[in-house]
Amino acid sequence: MTSGVFIHPQAISESPDIGDGTRIWAFAHVMEGAKVGANCNIGEHSFIERGAVVGNGVTVKNGVSVWEGICLEDYVFVGPNVVFTNERYPRAQRNPEVADRYRTKAWLLPTRIREGASIGANATVLCGLTIGRYAVIAAGAVVVSDVDDFQLVVGTPAEPRGRVCICGVPLGAQTPGRCAACGRVY
Amino acid sequence: MTSGVFIHPQAISESPDIGDGTRIWAFAHVMEGAKVGANCNIGEHSFIERGAVVGNGVTVKNGVSVWEGICLEDYVFVGPNVVFTNERYPRAQRNPEVADRYRTKAWLLPTRIREGASIGANATVLCGLTIGRYAVIAAGAVVVSDVDDFQLVVGTPAEPRGRVCICGVPLGAQTPGRCAACGRVY
Amino acid sequence: MTSGVFIHPQAISESPDIGDGTRIWAFAHVMEGAKVGANCNIGEHSFIERGAVVGNGVTVKNGVSVWEGICLEDYVFVGPNVVFTNERYPRAQRNPEVADRYRTKAWLLPTRIREGASIGANATVLCGLTIGRYAVIAAGAVVVSDVDDFQLVVGTPAEPRGRVCICGVPLGAQTPGRCAACGRVY
Repeated sequence: MTSGVFIHPQAISESPDIGDGTRIWAFAHVMEGAKVGANCNIGEHSFIERGAVVGNGVTVKNGVSVWEGICLEDYVFVGPNVVFTNERYPRAQRNPEVADRYRTKAWLLPTRIREGASIGANATVLCGLTIGRYAVIAAGAVVVSDVDDFQLVVGTPAEPRGRVCICGVPLGAQTPGRCAACGRVY
Repeated sequence: MTSGVFIHPQAISESPDIGDGTRIWAFAHVMEGAKVGANCNIGEHSFIERGAVVGNGVTVKNGVSVWEGICLEDYVFVGPNVVFTNERYPRAQRNPEVADRYRTKAWLLPTRIREGASIGANATVLCGLTIGRYAVIAAGAVVVSDVDDFQLVVGTPAEPRGRVCICGVPLGAQTPGRCAACGRVY
Repeated sequence: MTSGVFIHPQAISESPDIGDGTRIWAFAHVMEGAKVGANCNIGEHSFIERGAVVGNGVTVKNGVSVWEGICLEDYVFVGPNVVFTNERYPRAQRNPEVADRYRTKAWLLPTRIREGASIGANATVLCGLTIGRYAVIAAGAVVVSDVDDFQLVVGTPAEPRGRVCICGVPLGAQTPGRCAACGRVY
């Protein structure tokens, strides 16, 4: 274990691949074979599966499972109870009727959340997708297609509803080229 | 405890009624009085309440509570953070204003998920319903009425959107009688 | 710790401010600095953060995080996997690009759930809102604006769909002034 990692006594961390300054809270579980960068915050009741990749400075709030095939790039924010998936047509693998589907891992579709993007509370993210840099998924949205950089998407299924600033605030219709909150110019 | 059951050291299993080959993962809790069949996979942070019935070969992914009154038949797949309910008009039971409602268990409405059905990630299933054999509930859907065998439902409220094969893949509009993925004929 | 509080051996309770008769179930965590009233039921895998306030006789079902800034008044019912928020435009706080946003707590928007209200299973409640007395949020709804006393809201975004009785049952269109279930007159 890297020095400087905080692991709550009631968390389970089996991965040697966790960066400095990362904190893992109660009832969270980071499996062996999961990679977690530096300065991350891994919330309570979260789960980082073998094969998942989490960058640096990532916030994962409570109740989130980050499955094999999911990559969260640096500074991604994942809201509470956000749900990722890694299979499009899931069935119970122990059913002999579907055994053919599970002979290989062809069912696994990876998803990438790019740098700085925010996934709102209780959103659902289907698999095989890319969520662009600093994009924002509204709370409760169901994301079924790729999301562009700096795009805000809302609803179920999630649809574009304007653009957002790096600071997180939507860019207004009046001044689409300048953030009214922080003054950044686009 | 049946031999051949795997219970993670940080899980809680109080039920003597768990079938062979079933695995119960970290921070999951199976209460006394819950029945779980053989060869099931009970994901992390899941909860199987006294009075719940889980068949054989069932997959319950992470963060799912299976309440009293819920029956998951053989080979059901329950995606991550799927939410079941067993009461239509819930109030806080300790409120003296609603004490009449909770004198008996008339508030409890059972729900049955029939053999082989798949409940997609983060879907919500209202109570008093039957989800048919090999039906598929799309991720994020809110199910408010019964679902037929082999039916795919999508959205909030969930509405029919075609039929699916036993293998999980939707049956195409062009060839509704034959699965393009596995070749099964209907 | 007040006498008469039940804390499951696998729960974590760090708050000295928990009322008599309250039960805290497995894998739940009540932080120091959280206030919880008497006769509450705090479900498994739930989390009550420092700065959260929970009244008397409140039911919090499984998998719910009650964040700083959230106040649940007496006799509130919070369904399973309900998701609260306390920030409108969240970003990962460790990102130097957004450091200005997190110098103060101006980002924190409080939410109040008033006496006796019910939040349905898997609903999402945005922040800075007030949910009125005995209001009902339907399962799976995404609440983006205030909800009046006794109002039922449904869908995503949640919209008004009639009124409900204190007992929880919707007031019918035929007899809007009298509850067909319990006979209360409005």
